Amino acid sequence: MSEDHEAPMINGVEHETGKEEDVLPFEEDDYGGVIVEMKTPMDPKCFIATLRYSFTQWRLQGKKGVWLNLPLTHVNLVEPAVKEGFRYHHAEPTYLMLVYWIPKADSTIPLNASHRVRVGAVVLNPNNEILVVQEKYGTLRGLDVWKIPTGVVDVGEEIFTAAIREVKEETGIDTEFLEILAFCQSHKSFFAKSDLFFICLLRPTSFDIQKQDS
Amino acid sequence: MSEDHEAPMINGVEHETGKEEDVLPFEEDDYGGVIVEMKTPMDPKCFIATLRYSFTQWRLQGKKGVWLNLPLTHVNLVEPAVKEGFRYHHAEPTYLMLVYWIPKADSTIPLNASHRVRVGAVVLNPNNEILVVQEKYGTLRGLDVWKIPTGVVDVGEEIFTAAIREVKEETGIDTEFLEILAFCQSHKSFFAKSDLFFICLLRPTSFDIQKQDS
Repeated sequence: MSEDHEAPMINGVEHETGKEEDVLPFEEDDYGGVIVEMKTPMDPKCFIATLRYSFTQWRLQGKKGVWLNLPLTHVNLVEPAVKEGFRYHHAEPTYLMLVYWIPKADSTIPLNASHRVRVGAVVLNPNNEILVVQEKYGTLRGLDVWKIPTGVVDVGEEIFTAAIREVKEETGIDTEFLEILAFCQSHKSFFAKSDLFFICLLRPTSFDIQKQDS
Repeated sequence: MSEDHEAPMINGVEHETGKEEDVLPFEEDDYGGVIVEMKTPMDPKCFIATLRYSFTQWRLQGKKGVWLNLPLTHVNLVEPAVKEGFRYHHAEPTYLMLVYWIPKADSTIPLNASHRVRVGAVVLNPNNEILVVQEKYGTLRGLDVWKIPTGVVDVGEEIFTAAIREVKEETGIDTEFLEILAFCQSHKSFFAKSDLFFICLLRPTSFDIQKQDS
């Protein structure tokens, strides 16, 4: 935080009451909120002071939600943020997103992602034989259960691409996507999250099965 | 953490080398990992010492992933956990889940939920008029755009239930679910997450439109 409370000239601009240089850097979102992404390290005490001053400004400006993105390297600011009233919204391996709702009205902040999407692949060869696998890990390991190849859709991946990829990874077979045969939703399948499972029909374009090592 | 390094009798049981009382309380998962849910407050220094001792035990036992669930009230342990090598996995408003992968081999820890699921509702009355709304908030606000009712599927909610609920909330109209007309996937629609959008055909069972206040 700058120490300019008695220094009215900053970068050649007079600062008497505005003190805009003390507001955390932020961008506006499309819903009347602000997004703060902490990019430079900050001492927790400075952070709290700057955060409090920022809130006075945002309240005056009628801002609603405040998003606070703390990269893993800024983990020292998580506890101060929570003590100032922030709540967790979501986290990915490299950052934690916290959120604060300014208005007295109920929060309209949307929830985090709620679903994982999985695919299962029905691959039939010209003899109408179906391609099946056994699990090396997981709950079916060692149970001599045969099942269709399945897997989780990656971030940003199309459903049909995931089906083709999983079949290739697990069996070495190349395939073309034909259609989605069915899908179903189940709940509380991974912590509190839901699961959308799409069963895809694929046509094999190679026939030499190679088992996955791991 | 107990201070019994020179006190071999704990609860009437002799403890010479095991010190099992110093391992964080945990449950085993189905994949050779352990799940720690911190339920009682802990001083960060005690937490680090207990965590380090726990890791020596878990390594000896061949454990793989370590899940660490820190409720919001235990935010004081987030920074120590990250400094011990934990990474964020996911967060909900009331807790942060961190994870640590013990083996030298690549992590097989599954990713967090990747998708939000939304619904759109096509509601036709007996005159083949379609039910449409205007947004009071969001990017379409004030643009005089008419659109079908849409919304996000709640945690644990079925797709058809969500469609019926959104139509009721936005228009006051009661409906029955008939079928899914189409669905599509888009990416990076909410932070880095993907979006699965299901368009549902609904039959109205009431016809008195009541606009949503908020």
